[in-house]
Order: sequence, then C-alpha cells, then structure tokens
Amino acid sequence: MKKYQDMNSAELAQEKARVQEHYQKLKDLNLKLDMSRGKPGKDQLDAVSDLLTALQDPADCKVDGMDVRNYGNLRGLPAAQRLFAELLGCRPEEVIMGGSSSLTLMYDLVMRGYCFGLTHSPRPWSQEAGRKWLCPVPGYDRHFKITEAFGFEMIPVPLLPDGPDMDRIEDLVKDPLVKGIWCVPKYSNPDGVVYSEETLRRFARLEAAAPDFTIIWDNAYCVHEFEGDYLPFPDIIGLCREAGHPDMVYEFASTSKVTFPGAGVAVMAASEANLAYQAKLMDVQLISYDKVNQLRHVKLLQDKEHTLALMKKHAAILKPRFDSVLNWLEKEIAPRGIGRWQTPKGGYFISLYTLPGLAKRTVALCKEAGVVLTGAGATWPLGLDPEDSNIRIAPSLPPVEELEAAMEVLCTALELAALEKIN
Amino acid sequence: MKKYQDMNSAELAQEKARVQEHYQKLKDLNLKLDMSRGKPGKDQLDAVSDLLTALQDPADCKVDGMDVRNYGNLRGLPAAQRLFAELLGCRPEEVIMGGSSSLTLMYDLVMRGYCFGLTHSPRPWSQEAGRKWLCPVPGYDRHFKITEAFGFEMIPVPLLPDGPDMDRIEDLVKDPLVKGIWCVPKYSNPDGVVYSEETLRRFARLEAAAPDFTIIWDNAYCVHEFEGDYLPFPDIIGLCREAGHPDMVYEFASTSKVTFPGAGVAVMAASEANLAYQAKLMDVQLISYDKVNQLRHVKLLQDKEHTLALMKKHAAILKPRFDSVLNWLEKEIAPRGIGRWQTPKGGYFISLYTLPGLAKRTVALCKEAGVVLTGAGATWPLGLDPEDSNIRIAPSLPPVEELEAAMEVLCTALELAALEKIN
Repeated sequence: MKKYQDMNSAELAQEKARVQEHYQKLKDLNLKLDMSRGKPGKDQLDAVSDLLTALQDPADCKVDGMDVRNYGNLRGLPAAQRLFAELLGCRPEEVIMGGSSSLTLMYDLVMRGYCFGLTHSPRPWSQEAGRKWLCPVPGYDRHFKITEAFGFEMIPVPLLPDGPDMDRIEDLVKDPLVKGIWCVPKYSNPDGVVYSEETLRRFARLEAAAPDFTIIWDNAYCVHEFEGDYLPFPDIIGLCREAGHPDMVYEFASTSKVTFPGAGVAVMAASEANLAYQAKLMDVQLISYDKVNQLRHVKLLQDKEHTLALMKKHAAILKPRFDSVLNWLEKEIAPRGIGRWQTPKGGYFISLYTLPGLAKRTVALCKEAGVVLTGAGATWPLGLDPEDSNIRIAPSLPPVEELEAAMEVLCTALELAALEKIN
Repeated sequence: MKKYQDMNSAELAQEKARVQEHYQKLKDLNLKLDMSRGKPGKDQLDAVSDLLTALQDPADCKVDGMDVRNYGNLRGLPAAQRLFAELLGCRPEEVIMGGSSSLTLMYDLVMRGYCFGLTHSPRPWSQEAGRKWLCPVPGYDRHFKITEAFGFEMIPVPLLPDGPDMDRIEDLVKDPLVKGIWCVPKYSNPDGVVYSEETLRRFARLEAAAPDFTIIWDNAYCVHEFEGDYLPFPDIIGLCREAGHPDMVYEFASTSKVTFPGAGVAVMAASEANLAYQAKLMDVQLISYDKVNQLRHVKLLQDKEHTLALMKKHAAILKPRFDSVLNWLEKEIAPRGIGRWQTPKGGYFISLYTLPGLAKRTVALCKEAGVVLTGAGATWPLGLDPEDSNIRIAPSLPPVEELEAAMEVLCTALELAALEKIN
C-alpha cells in the first residue's frame, strides 16, 4: 500500500472512490458507539463487586478508634491515608482523603487559590490581573476547563516523549503571573507519556517567580499499567521537599479507575504546611467526606500489593481493547502515512495525530457514522488545536467487537478526510 | 425555691456556698461529656444498618436504565430526585442530588455567586463592594462561617416565634447590596422554631432590590420531628414561583440525620432555570456525585411513607434525651429565674437564653468540669452574641445517663455564673 503523499491523481481518485463506498456502507450500519471518555467497562466494574459488601454491619464500621458512620475527621480515615501514602510513595500525614472525585479536589484547590490565595500567595489569584497557567499539550480537557473558568490565560507547552518541555517551563515560570501548571505525570492524558526522572527533578528544582506557583500533579494513572509490571515512580512531594520547594506541589489521585468510577474515593497529597492551610479553608466547606466509603476501599484494596494485583485484572480486560485500536491504526493508517501515535503501556487513551487539518473533519465523519469521539481540539486549552491534528481515543468502555467496528469507522473517516483535503 | 433576683444577700451567700460546693463535687468526678454538636448517637446509626447491605451485587446497581457504578449523570439518580422531591414537596426536575454534605452544596452555591454570579447577578459577588447577608439569630454557626469567608457583612435579624422578623427583612432587602439570607425554616437551629405559613408567603413575595437576592433555605430538619406526627410544610419553591420570584430560593436537605451523618446524601432544589445555570458551572467541578450511595438511599428509604416511619424510630431514641434536658432546665433553672428556652418538637437542639452576660462564663465553667458545649456566641455571626446569653444544647449524642450528668453540670455552672455576677 502506498502513502497518500506518494500516490498520483489516478491512484488518489481510485482510493477515494473505494473509501467513499466503504464509508457509506459503514454509515448504513446505523452504529451507535462511544469512544469519547475514559470510562471503564462493565467487566471492570464487576471485578470489584466486593466493594459493595465490604461493610456488612455496625461492627465493621469501627476503625482507628472511630465510628466511620458519624460526622468528623475532615482529613479522612487514617487507614485510608496510610493506604494512599503507600500507593503514592508519600507520608500519611501528607494525605487528605476526599469524596468520590479528584477533579472536584483539583477544582476546589484552584477555587481556593482564586478566592483566598494558597499557602504563599501575596493575594488571592482573583486579584492577579493577567494571571497565567501552563498547560502541557495535548492534555486533559477537564483540567483546562477549570483554569478557563477561573480566568487564567492558558499557555500551551509541548509535551515531549519524556514529559513537558522543561526548557520552556523553566523560562516561563520567570513570569510572576504564571501561577501554576497542569501535569499528568504517569501515562499522561492522552499521550500515555511517562515523565522521566530527570523531568521530575527539574520540576522539583523549578525557580518560579510567583511565590505561590503551584504544580497540580494529577497522578490519575499511578497504578494503571495495562501492559507489563507496575512501574515504580518517584514521589514528587519528597523531591520538591528535598529541592527546597516543599509547598510547590499538590498531588491528586483517585480510585475512579480502580473501583467504581462514579463512587470511588479521591485523595489530595501535599506538604503538611499546605494541608494545614487547606484544611482550615475546607473546614468551612464541609464537616467530613464519606468515611464509610473510604473504609470500604481500605477493606477491598488493603495495601499496595493487593491493589496492584487488582490492577492486573483491569489490565487483562483493557489490553485487548488497546491492542484492537493499535492494530487498526497499524494496519490502516500507518501505511497511508496520514497519522502517527504513541504506544502507551498504561493509562486510558491513545492519542492519534492526523496530518494537519484533519482532526475536526475526521471526528465529524465518525459522528455522522454513529461513532462518538472526544471532540477534536479538546486536548488543547479552549479547544483550540492549532494544527487541528490531535484526536483522543478512549478504548476502555466498548467491548472489543464494538471497538473493532468503531475503529473501522475511525480509520475510514480519517482516510476520507485526508482524501478530501488532497483533492 | 426563690428567684435569685428576689433573694437577699444572706440568701444569695448561702446559695452561692451551696452551688460552689456542688460544682466542686461535680468537677471532682472528672467527667468527659460532649453536648457540642448535633451528632446522632450510636443507636440511631444502628437503626439504619440496612443501608450497608442495600446493594449486594452488580445487578442491584442498575436503575433508571443506568449503571450507577460508572461515571455520569451530574444531576444524580432520577429515582433519588423523585424521592427527595416527594419529601420536600417540589418537582423532581427541581432537584440536584449531591454528595454526602448539604453544607458543601451551600458553600459551593455561595462560592459560585462569589466567583461567577448566580442566575440573575449583574456581576460576581466578589465585585460587589460592601456586600451584605442577612442572618436570623440565633442561627447556625457553620452558615455564618461561609458568608464570613466570602467577605459578606452579616446583618443579624431577630428570630421570632413564627420565623425571622419579616418587617425588618422587607426593609433590609431594599438595599441592593443585600444579596441573601440564611434560613432553617423548620425546627430552626438552634431554637427549634417553625416558620409560619404567613412568614413563608412573605418570603415568597419579597421585593428585593438585588436581582440576585438569594434565600438559602436549609431544610435540614424537614422530616425530623421527635415529638408528635410529621408536620406538613409548604414547598417554598412553589410559593416563590407563584409569587413571581421563581429563582429567588435554593433549598437544601440531607440524610445526615436520617441515615449516616458522615455518609448520607444531600440535595439542592431550585427552579429549573437556576438548576440549569448551576449544572453548567458544576460540570467544570465534577463528572458526577456518588450515585451508588444515592441508590442505597433509594432502596432503604423508598418513599416518604417509609422515610417517616424511620423518623419515628429516630424520634423514639431522641425524645428521652430532649426530655432529660428540658426536665433539668424546668427543675433547676426556671425556679431561679436565670434562664429561658423554647420547647421544640423537632430538630436537634435546645436553645438556652441565660440572663444577659452569663453564657460565656457558663460554657467555660462547664468545660472546666469536663462538659463540652457549643462555644457561647457561636449562634451569632462572628461569634458575637451582643447579650452574651445564648447557649446551644445538643442532646442527641450522649446516652441519657450521660446527659443527666452533663445537665447537672450545666445547671450548676449557670447558677454559679449567675451568683458570681450578682455578688
């Protein structure tokens, strides 16, 4: 098979006729498939059914000397703090257990910066005219929407194979209006990039002009390998402490892709000084998060070893889905020279880069044929992908046979979009 | 027994000697008792153990065509919306289900007003210099802390036996800087006052100068009778709609005192226009609240009839505790003429008014003798009770025998405080 760029007009015309016919046939199937969000599939949810029955009667609800059913203990269950400290490699006293959503914990952190300022803020961020936030791209649309809502100018920073472009970041943080950065350090959303140790050290050593420069370290996929063994990953909180910047980073994680996506537990980890300050502000917002659910998770997950064993079950379910996507791209897109991608070993996404100018049209063609993808551009702040190239593929939800159908549509749509552009 | 005001100095000296000796004896018992917060007791928690086992396996997690374990459905489970609409008397489409804390829903509403403005705000509240909030007093300390945190000047409004002083409120809302009011309309915290129908109608008809004037209607004790039958209560959302102010009120409730205080479900109810606007802003903060726990509650509570039957069980546990407090006050405080109180039929508190200038000292004396009460002044904005008179008694947590001991201390402490003041 030839690359499109190497075809002559006759060949291109022939290919276009073939692709158009194929696309029409797929459209006639009236598919209704969804690869838009990183939602675990039903078999993954069924793998953690023991969570439902982890607590059976009042006696099960006592732990660490407290009755988890009642009010109290804003920072959460000590047993849960210990579990997440072990998973993240930090100290239990650096952990606050939240409700079911780490996104909410991140939003609330930015909200507190905006309304009240963070630990070292000279003033609330709302009073910093021209405030800016660094956004490695492609990145997570829900991150960008938070800093958009709070009025930050968002500065895209290229994500390289070993993490964000640190040269650029070291330069940008010289501006005191740059208040923070979004990071998904392990199996980044969507590329699946793992930040290198050198990247982590450069983050920890960052000399930011803003005294309240904040790294939001969304370690969403900290134990989420779907291929190979667990990849140990340095503790950023310790690294920042050692580098003399203990209060520069807030780390987040959740069990949304470990247990139940809509009913897991989330965690915020940071220096003790940061947590003391946060807890003081949180105390106005709530009495305590759901400790009953925290205890269910402690009973189910027990410790890092048990958690990693569970993640192997998830991996066994996810791997064939990722293989399906990658096989289709290998077989259909690579030979035609119209897209590239990375091959992640963990996380929830495959990040497809089409030739420039094809992403929006490809996603639209997919939609017409009944396949919903994350909107093109979503991986950029404000949805503005300057190359119109990046498409986030989320293969976790559909069963493999549906994925096969969806990928056939996606590949055909990209081919058609490319041929429309060339002709 | 004579009132202190009717005693001569010899009688007062004799009484003081008796009380001092009694107080010292109580102190020597080294008690450690807590009447500080409206925390349900262990027997109340045990009464809802079926919540733990309400969902047993994956098949139980499907309802309304959705898998509650997975992401999605920001407004919550339709079955839960229907249940709470029935309890509150509003429409299901006027209900958003939250996480475990109604306090958080209220905080987040004020936060959104502050950061972004509410449905009819000309600008975010953060940009309204001199913004004000009305605070019926005595009231709930955690309410006041929210409006304090967001920089509102808090204006106390007297709470009368049929609700807040509406003459005063109708006058105050002519000021466009008055942006809202805190209300606990049924069994108010701490007095246990039930707003009258006329009060409700005057609220609904309020002509506020601020287009975004907001009634926060914290219906925390909507089904929380501990004496007598359920008291029907008009739906404020419907009343406001009928009065031409559909977007003026946001109602809140939770199961914190129905099921598990730390792990119940909370609800925000408001006009559809308000909810549409809120949902748009909430969509940046989270994907969805814990629908698994919402479903557990639907299974346990089923409908209003079942919920009220459960509340009768709670009432049977609470009634003897309230009786204990009231008996002590009747027996020890009334004859000495040093305090007054109301006799609520629901809610979680008894509100004791000492003679002016005695509350702080009484609470301090209790603390010295090992009995923790809510801080004196806590029922006023900024903790400033101008009369130093109001003490909130929370009898729900301690078993009756502990309450008896605690009330003996409280009565003795108040007597001592009064005698110190007179001499």
